[in-house]
Amino acid sequence: MPAEKDVVKELKKLGNKVLEDIEKGENPNIEIPIRALSNVVFDKKTGQIILGDKTSKRYYFNVAHAKKFMQTLLVAAFCKSLKDEKIHASIRDMYYNLKRTLPNSDENIFDEQSESDPIIVDLEVAIDILRENLNLTTDRKGIVSGNVIIQDRGDSIDWSKLGSGGWSIPSTVDEIDFKKVDAEFALVVEKNAGFERLHEDKFWQKQKCILIGTGGQPSRGTRLLIQRLNKEHGMPIYVLTDSDSYGFYIYSVIKSGSISLAHVSDRIATPEAKFIGLTVSDIFDYDLKKMTIKTKEVDIKRAKELLNYEWFKKPKWQKEINLMIEKGIKAEIEALSSRGLKFMSETYLPQKIKKGDFLD
Amino acid sequence: MPAEKDVVKELKKLGNKVLEDIEKGENPNIEIPIRALSNVVFDKKTGQIILGDKTSKRYYFNVAHAKKFMQTLLVAAFCKSLKDEKIHASIRDMYYNLKRTLPNSDENIFDEQSESDPIIVDLEVAIDILRENLNLTTDRKGIVSGNVIIQDRGDSIDWSKLGSGGWSIPSTVDEIDFKKVDAEFALVVEKNAGFERLHEDKFWQKQKCILIGTGGQPSRGTRLLIQRLNKEHGMPIYVLTDSDSYGFYIYSVIKSGSISLAHVSDRIATPEAKFIGLTVSDIFDYDLKKMTIKTKEVDIKRAKELLNYEWFKKPKWQKEINLMIEKGIKAEIEALSSRGLKFMSETYLPQKIKKGDFLD
Repeated sequence: MPAEKDVVKELKKLGNKVLEDIEKGENPNIEIPIRALSNVVFDKKTGQIILGDKTSKRYYFNVAHAKKFMQTLLVAAFCKSLKDEKIHASIRDMYYNLKRTLPNSDENIFDEQSESDPIIVDLEVAIDILRENLNLTTDRKGIVSGNVIIQDRGDSIDWSKLGSGGWSIPSTVDEIDFKKVDAEFALVVEKNAGFERLHEDKFWQKQKCILIGTGGQPSRGTRLLIQRLNKEHGMPIYVLTDSDSYGFYIYSVIKSGSISLAHVSDRIATPEAKFIGLTVSDIFDYDLKKMTIKTKEVDIKRAKELLNYEWFKKPKWQKEINLMIEKGIKAEIEALSSRGLKFMSETYLPQKIKKGDFLD
Repeated sequence: MPAEKDVVKELKKLGNKVLEDIEKGENPNIEIPIRALSNVVFDKKTGQIILGDKTSKRYYFNVAHAKKFMQTLLVAAFCKSLKDEKIHASIRDMYYNLKRTLPNSDENIFDEQSESDPIIVDLEVAIDILRENLNLTTDRKGIVSGNVIIQDRGDSIDWSKLGSGGWSIPSTVDEIDFKKVDAEFALVVEKNAGFERLHEDKFWQKQKCILIGTGGQPSRGTRLLIQRLNKEHGMPIYVLTDSDSYGFYIYSVIKSGSISLAHVSDRIATPEAKFIGLTVSDIFDYDLKKMTIKTKEVDIKRAKELLNYEWFKKPKWQKEINLMIEKGIKAEIEALSSRGLKFMSETYLPQKIKKGDFLD
């Protein structure tokens, strides 16, 4: 996490740059990396989907730029005030807070939230600071349990003592302090139901791990948490999803980031994450054939797209995806329950971990 | 919550009834209340949407019933085994666990989950026990904070010491023990972002309340929690949603239940819940006119449906819904942020609570 003063420093730098332009009598401008697909690349070295180095300039004296220029500075000023007051706001709160009519005009600062949302991303890339560090919250979704004690907003929270509930992962994950992390790996489960089953079986206790439920595509906060556990605490990350194109894609987003959030991959992706299952091979290895679902046209179309993504161009992945296409089947995590409700926690996962049977 | 032994007793009673039918040489049958719209009524006395008293019988010796009869008994047996083993399963886990081919036949017990899901509801209504008490988990979504200490699965959990996170509300809410409930009311917020804002402002501490975020239409677990806080601890329940048909409907589901879950209203609805806002009048009273969104055709259509629901046939509600239709506007909770980010926690909510300005 960038220190608080650095965030404010970057915001001030942006403002000072504009002031200097004015003092020099130049057309005030802000340089913003381009976020179009044409500037998104897969960086093989870091294993992340990132922005390339193309940038564009947003000018004050330019009829096509002037409004967005004003909006960008207002959003930056809003974030500065959040930092000063030490409070957080959602991007919708921000939209309403800034929505007003300019004096002596009919011009609104923003008419729709669809106008203010991209300006936040512009600011994120322009000063290279996550919106979470600009005190803008994002929607939360995940849950976590495990032998971990954190300090957050003055509270000491023991993730191993939260009953059946677990800790609801906020978007402000960058602000928590890890006081104790006593685990050998973190298991990230796509489905909350899978989290509940494993949580009830005390999987995290027996396997000495941290258990994270994402409830589908993980929220930004959950991705940040996964990265912090990996980077700061050396936690291996194992991802468990359904054996289908959507599950494989969730894994790839955790590992390599996504095209739409390419500008923050270095902050929220975890290239060291590994896929523990369900693989298509697992269906055969663990006798789940009768529990599969026939793929639909859309599954096959998506699978063929995955085959062409740089980050899936690894022999093991190509084999798995091709096997899915060839057999025309997919399977849900819960298919493992056909072998007994505790089969996942007591047999399947321990076996895969012991054998180191992961896809990378 | 029904005592564990009562749940098992009801399951056994169901099995014994079938056994007795066999011993008496009668056609074994199970009596199941009808869940069709024709048997759903609004009970004015309790303020809940409930099932009427029509029932139907499911017979073993009846070509049209035999398969469902078998499925019902298998689901009941599965739940009995969950109770015996003291573990929980999702309804999908159950589907896969029971999915198999009958010996010496081509007949599968279940082909699709869409076959097993309604059987669970049949069982719920037949023995009048919530699926949660049959150890079947449902999807979780809500978060809670406040001056409350609970005991759950051997852990003591203090809802006031969970940092920015909060406690993730599981589906097994019936199993938690309340050790300390030190609050004057519970505020239920439709949106997680609203929860975060209020949580950060320590609203629950300053107003001595329990703060619940539902993340849209509340999960069954969250509704159970709301009812328990109201029934067992006399907590007044105030519901805060967007000022639109969808928000009003969320409130009505918390208060009166819903048609699709009419068979469990008495267990998960809270007729004493009150609506704190946003009302359409609030838009005018709190100077939010410029922050409104024009209603679409679908909003008006839905609003007209609400007007005709028995549970909205109260003068204040009719006035509010008609005002929305007449003005053609709706507003989001976050519109309050136009008056300042802390306006909701420091002005709007305290004023409404002080004045007792609720819709019932």
